[in-house]
Amino acid sequence: MTTTNLKDLYNSRRESIVKDYFKLLSFPSVSSEAEYTNDVLACADWLVDSLKKIGFDTELWKTEGHPTIFASHLKAGPNKPTLLIYNHYDVQPVDPLELWRSPPFQPTEKEGVIYARGAQDNKGQCTYVIQALKALIEQDKALPINVKLCIEGEEENGSTGLSGILRAKKDQLKADYLAIVDAGLRKQATPTVTLGFRGIVTMDVEAQCSSTDLHSGSHGGMVYNPIHALVEILSKLRDSSGRITIPGFYDGVEEFKTADKAALTLAFDPVDYKNKFGATPTGGEKKYSPLERAWMRPTIEINGINGGYTGSGFKTVIPAKASAKVSCRLVPNQDPEQVGKLVAQYIEQLAPEGVHVTATIRPGGGKPIRALPESHVVKAFARAYAEVFQAPCEFIFEGGSIPVISELALASGAEIVLLGMGLADDNIHAPNEHFGLDRLEQGFLVIARALQILGE
Amino acid sequence: MTTTNLKDLYNSRRESIVKDYFKLLSFPSVSSEAEYTNDVLACADWLVDSLKKIGFDTELWKTEGHPTIFASHLKAGPNKPTLLIYNHYDVQPVDPLELWRSPPFQPTEKEGVIYARGAQDNKGQCTYVIQALKALIEQDKALPINVKLCIEGEEENGSTGLSGILRAKKDQLKADYLAIVDAGLRKQATPTVTLGFRGIVTMDVEAQCSSTDLHSGSHGGMVYNPIHALVEILSKLRDSSGRITIPGFYDGVEEFKTADKAALTLAFDPVDYKNKFGATPTGGEKKYSPLERAWMRPTIEINGINGGYTGSGFKTVIPAKASAKVSCRLVPNQDPEQVGKLVAQYIEQLAPEGVHVTATIRPGGGKPIRALPESHVVKAFARAYAEVFQAPCEFIFEGGSIPVISELALASGAEIVLLGMGLADDNIHAPNEHFGLDRLEQGFLVIARALQILGE
Repeated sequence: MTTTNLKDLYNSRRESIVKDYFKLLSFPSVSSEAEYTNDVLACADWLVDSLKKIGFDTELWKTEGHPTIFASHLKAGPNKPTLLIYNHYDVQPVDPLELWRSPPFQPTEKEGVIYARGAQDNKGQCTYVIQALKALIEQDKALPINVKLCIEGEEENGSTGLSGILRAKKDQLKADYLAIVDAGLRKQATPTVTLGFRGIVTMDVEAQCSSTDLHSGSHGGMVYNPIHALVEILSKLRDSSGRITIPGFYDGVEEFKTADKAALTLAFDPVDYKNKFGATPTGGEKKYSPLERAWMRPTIEINGINGGYTGSGFKTVIPAKASAKVSCRLVPNQDPEQVGKLVAQYIEQLAPEGVHVTATIRPGGGKPIRALPESHVVKAFARAYAEVFQAPCEFIFEGGSIPVISELALASGAEIVLLGMGLADDNIHAPNEHFGLDRLEQGFLVIARALQILGE
Repeated sequence: MTTTNLKDLYNSRRESIVKDYFKLLSFPSVSSEAEYTNDVLACADWLVDSLKKIGFDTELWKTEGHPTIFASHLKAGPNKPTLLIYNHYDVQPVDPLELWRSPPFQPTEKEGVIYARGAQDNKGQCTYVIQALKALIEQDKALPINVKLCIEGEEENGSTGLSGILRAKKDQLKADYLAIVDAGLRKQATPTVTLGFRGIVTMDVEAQCSSTDLHSGSHGGMVYNPIHALVEILSKLRDSSGRITIPGFYDGVEEFKTADKAALTLAFDPVDYKNKFGATPTGGEKKYSPLERAWMRPTIEINGINGGYTGSGFKTVIPAKASAKVSCRLVPNQDPEQVGKLVAQYIEQLAPEGVHVTATIRPGGGKPIRALPESHVVKAFARAYAEVFQAPCEFIFEGGSIPVISELALASGAEIVLLGMGLADDNIHAPNEHFGLDRLEQGFLVIARALQILGE
């Protein structure tokens, strides 16, 4: 079967695909806000029903938080491989609501683009996965390989629920391949497979110098200002070349492999970056290129800082304390717990005399993940992408983190591939999130074709 | 006349003094909040009337903001000196109102202590000044010297009104001596004259790296995080010994004079400081003692810092910009405008590539002021204090700033002395401000006795 035939298959089902897509988007399955709990459950139930109807065995796994949908279609037999596909059915909150041009849970089409919360992340991507499976099953009464689905309900809220049950569900999750369908294209019409996400560890830092706010006239020069202590400490986390100074931070971090290097030959356009974000790529370690720094090198970033008077006027205060939020992005061989401890200890050791400094690691860190360019599953998906887009597949990395996927890879014992149809300007996590119907079709074709290739 | 006689004079008038004090405290003369404009005016009118009744020539000077009361009693003749006394009739806002144990504008007595906004700052101090003048005039039908009063209506709101008219009112303000009655005692029952206030200059600092907030996964290591830029810049303003690194900052700053040193022999008790404020005196320039640092050395302090996500959770954001509030306390030979420029330029020059940094000097800076221990007016007030308290007068400095007083000293051409009856725990600018009736009496005695001494 060629992609032309798959296109015909999509076209013949287009109307019902979009109808199901709109239905999925209409559930306000916001995982981080308690008032939507019932909507999250209703969304899960609807997906379970849909999967049952096309012949999947389904389970709704209870977790500490929202349930995970597990579904399997294992009729291709023991000689065929098993592919585990990861998606999530929960979405981000919609605030600020007033900036939406159409209601976030009433999907609205405008020139082939669908506007709704979750349109891309991740209900759009989840839709083309399920629709491709449904179309193949209904056409062939079978799938070319065995397929398992793990559709999470808390990706936008730390994945703690799924994370907590992964070890217990290890046997059911066992697979040859694992496809994380929550990534994107480097740009429109460019076939792209993602080779890695960075890991993450986050912490709260606080510096305290007195039991009460003090007047900077009477006490300035006397007491150690905690804002000064904080900026002094935080300024010492990187040297002037951008290298992170925390002893042991880079332990085990390897220079790039040849295969990784291939991805980094992609052009980075500083003019385009400046136009899009009003920024120049001058951050991070000076000895690496912008893409190397954003994709493959670890970082330390201050995500928030606060202390003293921050209104529009002025107040000559020395606050009792000042605080900051610090995160590290991690690469292979860096363990979030271990690196977090190194950073926290270093920060606390830098406390000047008279200043009490605490660095408290937050739960929800995650390991980095890497897909191997030479692996069978990466090659299969790259070939599917190339055939659908009629262009050579490009390989990229993603600087962000999906903490649960490294745990899922471990639990499933599978070879991993990371992919999707997202674009940087889809407004995920923002008002007016959107996804193109063209990419819904391309996603359908890539999934269907990759299944065929893996079944060859 | 001895202080015993003056005590009798106070006792005979006690009831009417406290009545007038309560009346003055009942005006909600909050200068920084527009809804109190009429109350500020009513307060000024009442004071003008009171001064007229006891024989002062009065004027209400219009300013850009609230009016300044000017009053003079020049009947001692040209052979007697003229003393200009500075007070202010405006008060700080009362928020948070819920923390007051009695209504802020209904003065309430509890065991000899009066609770009200302005009880000390500055209506308590203004009351004993006026009541001493009134008592002497009513008893002797004269004052021992010529007296001018300058009672400002905007001290708690930047003094811009008075500042704007000082040059035009130079002739009227001309005096031999200037007493700023807005300072305090080193501790209860300790006679104290203040030898100096520090000057001040304040500025807003902002670092911007992109036109929009960015995700620290996708952009971390790529873009220069403006919080990092800000902490790096601010950490460079002082070296590890606490010395300020800005070139030219200390130009003209002199080491302490012998007379100043006398004040600094006062004991600083770190245990007492720790008990009061939960702080150790480890800030500022290490080569100076705590009191030297708080009173007589210039400082740079970050009074506020803000950027990125600062809630209770975590958000992996790289904000578009981050900002800080910076102030410097200044000592003799430091000009606020000039030092402000040096600091602002230095901060802007430290901007890393790709980061746009601005440092904007705010209006309302002020020069430092020093009283001379060997001057006639300081000696006269020190003697008055010593006689009233029956103990040797101590000399201190104040680390804070009253920007307008250096301008007033210049306009009046007078020898200055700084004094008052305040204590550090009077809760000025805070809920439950209070002042002791014992100090109201002591203030009355000091003013009356100093006038007699200056008239000898």
